[in-house]
Amino acid sequence: MDLKKRVLDIANMLQSNAIDAVILFDAANIRYFTELRMTEGVQSILVITADAEITYIVPVLDYKRAILNCWINNIVIFPEDNPNYLMPLTQILQEKIIQKVGIEEDVLTYHKINFLKEVFHGELISVDNILTNLRAVKTEEEIPLIRKAAEIADQAMFESLKIVQEGVREADVSALARYIMEKNGAERTSFPPFLMSGKNAWLPQRFSSDKEISKSELILFDMGAIYKGYCSDLTRTFSLGNLSDHQREIFYLAYYAQQEAIKALKPGKQAWEIDKVARDIISAAGYGSNFPHLTGHGLGMSIHEKPIIDVGSNTILMPNMVVTIEPGIYVEGVGAARVEDMVLITETGCEVLTKTDRNLIN
Amino acid sequence: MDLKKRVLDIANMLQSNAIDAVILFDAANIRYFTELRMTEGVQSILVITADAEITYIVPVLDYKRAILNCWINNIVIFPEDNPNYLMPLTQILQEKIIQKVGIEEDVLTYHKINFLKEVFHGELISVDNILTNLRAVKTEEEIPLIRKAAEIADQAMFESLKIVQEGVREADVSALARYIMEKNGAERTSFPPFLMSGKNAWLPQRFSSDKEISKSELILFDMGAIYKGYCSDLTRTFSLGNLSDHQREIFYLAYYAQQEAIKALKPGKQAWEIDKVARDIISAAGYGSNFPHLTGHGLGMSIHEKPIIDVGSNTILMPNMVVTIEPGIYVEGVGAARVEDMVLITETGCEVLTKTDRNLIN
Repeated sequence: MDLKKRVLDIANMLQSNAIDAVILFDAANIRYFTELRMTEGVQSILVITADAEITYIVPVLDYKRAILNCWINNIVIFPEDNPNYLMPLTQILQEKIIQKVGIEEDVLTYHKINFLKEVFHGELISVDNILTNLRAVKTEEEIPLIRKAAEIADQAMFESLKIVQEGVREADVSALARYIMEKNGAERTSFPPFLMSGKNAWLPQRFSSDKEISKSELILFDMGAIYKGYCSDLTRTFSLGNLSDHQREIFYLAYYAQQEAIKALKPGKQAWEIDKVARDIISAAGYGSNFPHLTGHGLGMSIHEKPIIDVGSNTILMPNMVVTIEPGIYVEGVGAARVEDMVLITETGCEVLTKTDRNLIN
Repeated sequence: MDLKKRVLDIANMLQSNAIDAVILFDAANIRYFTELRMTEGVQSILVITADAEITYIVPVLDYKRAILNCWINNIVIFPEDNPNYLMPLTQILQEKIIQKVGIEEDVLTYHKINFLKEVFHGELISVDNILTNLRAVKTEEEIPLIRKAAEIADQAMFESLKIVQEGVREADVSALARYIMEKNGAERTSFPPFLMSGKNAWLPQRFSSDKEISKSELILFDMGAIYKGYCSDLTRTFSLGNLSDHQREIFYLAYYAQQEAIKALKPGKQAWEIDKVARDIISAAGYGSNFPHLTGHGLGMSIHEKPIIDVGSNTILMPNMVVTIEPGIYVEGVGAARVEDMVLITETGCEVLTKTDRNLIN
């Protein structure tokens, strides 16, 4: 990856916005610039100045590994298990003439703000938009990794569905899918894979339970892998047969809305226009209030990132954005249906990255 | 679980501290009072007032399930995928005469603070200590769940070690351990299980890689299950044989330090005293600087909670606290060793909850 270019890009954006430096705490934002994998839940801090100087602050346990494996020269430690892990920032903020610091407003906590305000008396300003815009358009180096993440999810869907039969627990199938993803090269999953059958699907429960799968149910299975930091996301709806006409109707409606939204994807459109395609189809059939979520979302080093494809989202779609398309219909007492694919926006239209068969109801 | 008692307990603590209400965003804090499982990453909000009124704000997708499965009567929704999910707070904060609001300073973000400050002009005060003190001492209802979480980790350690041989990837073993935990009733794992062999252990890497396991290495395997919301945590060090005397020395030293620290655990001691037992043994043998982390930590609905067993931690140990004891030694070019058990503090001493054999080096 051309990480120096990424640093120069963000530095240019900081200069354009008269911001002197950014302090990053979000793991995905940090890895975007460092390419160093950290285990989940470990806090590290990245500082990038408007003149493209970069300092990486890591826990003492990760220091040797960072020195060995990370391209950044200036690596600083903070003590493990010590609430003063922000201490090294003091020196950095005082060393430089920094008046205006960019922060992640959805990540920076009250504790950290209070610390920052003790050692830094300048202005704090959100840079969430700058970062999400930068990451929304994928580079040619990123796309093969996203393709591979999609392929791992496809494999896991295909293999884990083989064990599905009456009496198998929801949690057994999702446990197997996770295992297959990790065996096939996933660092971990994008989120805990979840299979929801029958009532659990229309509630919707959003996690796998001990409930056993049976006939006459619509069954949703949502999963994704992380490959070298990049997320995939894939949902299929299937059944063991004996469905009612009503269940079939909502499945084919959700599937049709999804396919039409995908056909509409191309550069230059605004995200809400894609959402409208799916939402209008579902509303016209009388299920508008049964589609209570977005049509899709960007994904990359985070499972949810720009562009959000929803009502009111005016992000202009651009080549090399990667999004999900996943309208869903949830009807109490009947069932739920959602078909979700990952789609790469191209110069002229789009390419669907996830491949598993879409019509899996019997 | 006696959830009403928990609400009364926190309400009493709020009254004692002249705090009118708490607004909770942390998933573990919220589940402690609601007992409703939410999938990872979903934001919900719990408000408890000093007169023990409780309001639960959930995403629209979780509303039906919350109404069905949660004991709380006052359940309010916010729109899914909408950054205005804090909106329902406006009404609650204005309805009541609330001057001083307790918040979680390690969780509340800049974005949320800015929102709160728009709709609420009173004082914000950290209640982290109140909540962590409340949760640190487990009830008689919680302990069986923690025992079960420990048992699931023991089973996964035992079963997954069976596939370990030369040439097996680190990631294959941890993937299997996760699968076994999920098959045996874990909701998910406390953290991504990680096996680190040879160099990866002394760095230490803290995640499983594609590296193949071989002889002459110390191998660390750290894992934990979540059972009905409660975490376990277990580490073993093992080998495929052909170890050097130096590798054996650090293993037996870490193991001895751990056993002595466990023997020292009893009510009335301060947490630093337990840390000192382990740290003094390791330092006296000349490895003080090779033990760069805490001796242990509490666990419950979070994988790290009070009491922290580390230098300077003056928490007084009490019956029904559950902690890990896990001193570790990491020597560049040689290897690493850590034996970690979960321990319940009793009226007279302690009881070790994790059972897997501890001496697994050949």
